[in-house]
Amino acid sequence: MTHYPFSRAITNTPKSFIREILKLTQSEHIISFAGGLPNKTLFPVSAIQAAANKVLSDDGENVLQYSTTEGYLPLRQWIAKRYLKYGITIAPEQVLITSGSQQALDLIGKLFLDAGDAVALENPSYLGAIQAFQMYQPRFYSANLTNEGIDVEALSEIVRTQQCQFFYGIPSFQNPTGLSYSLANRKAVAQWLIQDNRIMVEDNPYGELRFSGEDLPPIYKWAPDNTIMLGTFSKVCAPGFRLGWIVAPIPVMDKFIIAKQAADLHTSYFSQRVLYQYLHDNLIDEHISKIKHAYATQCQAMIAAIQAHLPAYITVTQPEGGMFLWLTLPDNWSAIDLFHIAVQHGVAFVPGEPFFADAQRQNQLRMSYCTNDEKAIREGIRRLAAAMDEYQKRLQEPSPLII
Amino acid sequence: MTHYPFSRAITNTPKSFIREILKLTQSEHIISFAGGLPNKTLFPVSAIQAAANKVLSDDGENVLQYSTTEGYLPLRQWIAKRYLKYGITIAPEQVLITSGSQQALDLIGKLFLDAGDAVALENPSYLGAIQAFQMYQPRFYSANLTNEGIDVEALSEIVRTQQCQFFYGIPSFQNPTGLSYSLANRKAVAQWLIQDNRIMVEDNPYGELRFSGEDLPPIYKWAPDNTIMLGTFSKVCAPGFRLGWIVAPIPVMDKFIIAKQAADLHTSYFSQRVLYQYLHDNLIDEHISKIKHAYATQCQAMIAAIQAHLPAYITVTQPEGGMFLWLTLPDNWSAIDLFHIAVQHGVAFVPGEPFFADAQRQNQLRMSYCTNDEKAIREGIRRLAAAMDEYQKRLQEPSPLII
Repeated sequence: MTHYPFSRAITNTPKSFIREILKLTQSEHIISFAGGLPNKTLFPVSAIQAAANKVLSDDGENVLQYSTTEGYLPLRQWIAKRYLKYGITIAPEQVLITSGSQQALDLIGKLFLDAGDAVALENPSYLGAIQAFQMYQPRFYSANLTNEGIDVEALSEIVRTQQCQFFYGIPSFQNPTGLSYSLANRKAVAQWLIQDNRIMVEDNPYGELRFSGEDLPPIYKWAPDNTIMLGTFSKVCAPGFRLGWIVAPIPVMDKFIIAKQAADLHTSYFSQRVLYQYLHDNLIDEHISKIKHAYATQCQAMIAAIQAHLPAYITVTQPEGGMFLWLTLPDNWSAIDLFHIAVQHGVAFVPGEPFFADAQRQNQLRMSYCTNDEKAIREGIRRLAAAMDEYQKRLQEPSPLII
Repeated sequence: MTHYPFSRAITNTPKSFIREILKLTQSEHIISFAGGLPNKTLFPVSAIQAAANKVLSDDGENVLQYSTTEGYLPLRQWIAKRYLKYGITIAPEQVLITSGSQQALDLIGKLFLDAGDAVALENPSYLGAIQAFQMYQPRFYSANLTNEGIDVEALSEIVRTQQCQFFYGIPSFQNPTGLSYSLANRKAVAQWLIQDNRIMVEDNPYGELRFSGEDLPPIYKWAPDNTIMLGTFSKVCAPGFRLGWIVAPIPVMDKFIIAKQAADLHTSYFSQRVLYQYLHDNLIDEHISKIKHAYATQCQAMIAAIQAHLPAYITVTQPEGGMFLWLTLPDNWSAIDLFHIAVQHGVAFVPGEPFFADAQRQNQLRMSYCTNDEKAIREGIRRLAAAMDEYQKRLQEPSPLII
C-alpha cells in the first residue's frame, strides 16, 4: 500500500459539500435553482466567434504563444478605464489578469495567509472564498450582514481582537444573500479601513448587474490604499474563458505578480485576446442591459411565486441586482433535510450551511433566478411549496427521523 | 503609510531573477537563446481557427459556460489514450486538466508541502518548479544529473535522511540541461520508489520531442502507484492555451480535485474545447514531426557552430530531443558576468545559477535552439565567441572587477 505524505493543508480540507450535494440535481427532471451559473442563452456567441476569427487571422502566432504574467496590456487598460464611471482612476499597472476571480482568492491566500492567521468574513460568506482561504489554514471570524450592509462595529471589533489579516466581502448583491451595502455603509467601511489601517478584499462579481435602485461605487473609491478589488468577466460576458482580475496598490501588485507567476505563469492568452477583441468590437453595455433585463424579470417572477405559493413565515431577500435570493425558514427547520425532499419533488436549491465559516445556521438556503425562464421558475416554486408541505408534515410526525 | 501584512511565504520569495535579467534581452538587435518559448512559426494557426469556429458554431453556449473541475472528459480520454504507445493504461479519471503544467507544480505544493518540509530535486533543476515549490517554504536537496540520468544512490540517501516529501525530476530532455535518463536509470528509479515507498513527480514537457535515439517510456510505467506524471500541450501544440495535465493514482487525484477547485474552479473551458477539437480533426503526430524536424536541424546547427567558434574547453550537452543545450564554462568563469558582456555583443542566454536550488554553480548556462533559424543561430554563436573572447581578456586584466 503506497503511502502518500499529504500536507496538513489538504488533509484538513474536506471534499466540497456543495459539489457532492449538487450531483443529486443533475437529472433533467429537476428544475434547479442551485447553480451559480449565468444564463447561457445570453452569451454573445456569434460576436465571440467573430472576435476569435479576427485575432487568429490577424495575429495567430502571437495569440498562441506564451505571454506576460500581468496579462494582455490592452485588456488591463480596458479594465482600468471601466472604473472611471465611478470617478476612480486606476493605472493599468495596478491590474493583474487572473484565471477567474477564484484564482484571485487563491493568490490572496498566498500573499496574506500563514497557517493560523485570522480572516474576517461576512456572515454568511461566499463559499468559493471560504474554500480558497481554507487551503491556507486560517481561523475564520464573521460579522453579520443586514439589509444595510456589514455591521462595521462588530467587524472592527473582530478584526482588532483577532488580528485579522484582511476582511473579505461582496458589497454589491452578495453571494449567497443578494444583499448590498448602502452608500453610508460603504463610506463607514472605508473610514474604518483607513482609521485602523486595515485591508479589505472587495469582491465585485455582480456589481454591473444592477436592475433596480441607484448604482453605488466600490469601497475602493474612498480607501484605495486599503482595498484590493476583484472583478470578473464571468457574469457580464462568459465564464468559460476563466477571466478575472485584481486591482491593487502597486506594492501589493508586485507581490501578486510573483505569486501569479509561480501559480500558472499567466492566464490563457488565447482567452484574453479573444475576449479583448470582443470588448473592442462590441458595446458591452448594450449586452449587459440585456442580461439585466432578463435577470430582473426572472427575479420578479421568483419573488412573486414565492409570495404566492410559499408559507408567509418564510422570508426572502429583495435584491436590486445580481443572481441570488436568500430564504430564511423557521428556526427549527433544516435546509438540508428540506433539500432531499425537494429533489424528490423535482426542484433544487443550495442549503445555506456551507456559507457559514464559523457560526453555523441550518435554516437558510440560496436560490438563483438566472438559468430558468419565468414558466420554469413558477413551476419550480410550486414544487418547492409541495416539498415544504411534506417537510412540515414529517416534522409533526413523532418518528422516524427525517432522512 | 498603509501596512500590508504579507505572509511569510511571499515575504521570503524573491522577485524572479530570470524575469529581471530577461528584460535586458528585449531589444530586436539581440539574438536571444534565452527564452524557453517554442517556435511560433510552427503553431498550427489555421487548423486552430477552424477548430474554434467549429466548437463555437456547434456548441457555443456550452463552450462559454462554467464546466467541471476535472476538465473536458473527451480531452482527458485523449490524454489517457496517448500513453498506450508506452504500454501504459490510464483511466480518464486519473487525468486532471491544469492551467499549464506550472499550475500542476503549484497544486503539488498544495498537496504535499507544509512549511519546512523537504523536496528532492535534480541538480540543476527546472527553475519554474523551484519557484512554484518555494511558495510553500520547503528545504531543497538535490542529486546530480549525468549523461545516464539521476544518481539514484545519492538520491535515495537524500530522500531518506532528509525525509523528502517527493522527488521532482524531468527524465526526458531536461530543462535546463537537455539530459535524459537511460532506460536502465528509469528502471532503477522505479525500483527505488517502490522499495522505499517514495513519491516521484515526473514532469514530461518535452518527451514527445525526441529527434534522435530510441523513445523511452516514462518512469510511471514501472511505478504507477508511486508516480505523479505531468504533461502539457505547450510544446507540441501551443502554450497560449495554458493547457497541461496531471496523471495520478485515484487517492491522490481526489485531493488534486479539491485543491484545483479552490485554486481556479477549472481551466479555461473555451481553450479546452478548441484544443480538443483541433486534436480530434487533425493528426497531431504529423504536426509533432514537423516540430521535431525543425528543432533537430536547429540543434545540430547550434552544436556545430559551438564546436566551430567557441573555445574547445567549453563543453556542451548533446540532447536527443527537447529544446535546450547546457554549456559548462571553465571553473573560474561567471556565467552572469559573461551574460552582461554577451548582451553588449547582441546575444543572450540564461545564466545557470537560478537552476540550482541548493549547491550553487556559477559557470554554466542554458541556451535554447528553438526560436532562431540556422542563420541566426550561427550569427548568435559568433557573437557569443566574441563575448567570450572579451570576457577572457578582462579576466586576465588585474583590475577593475568585471561589472
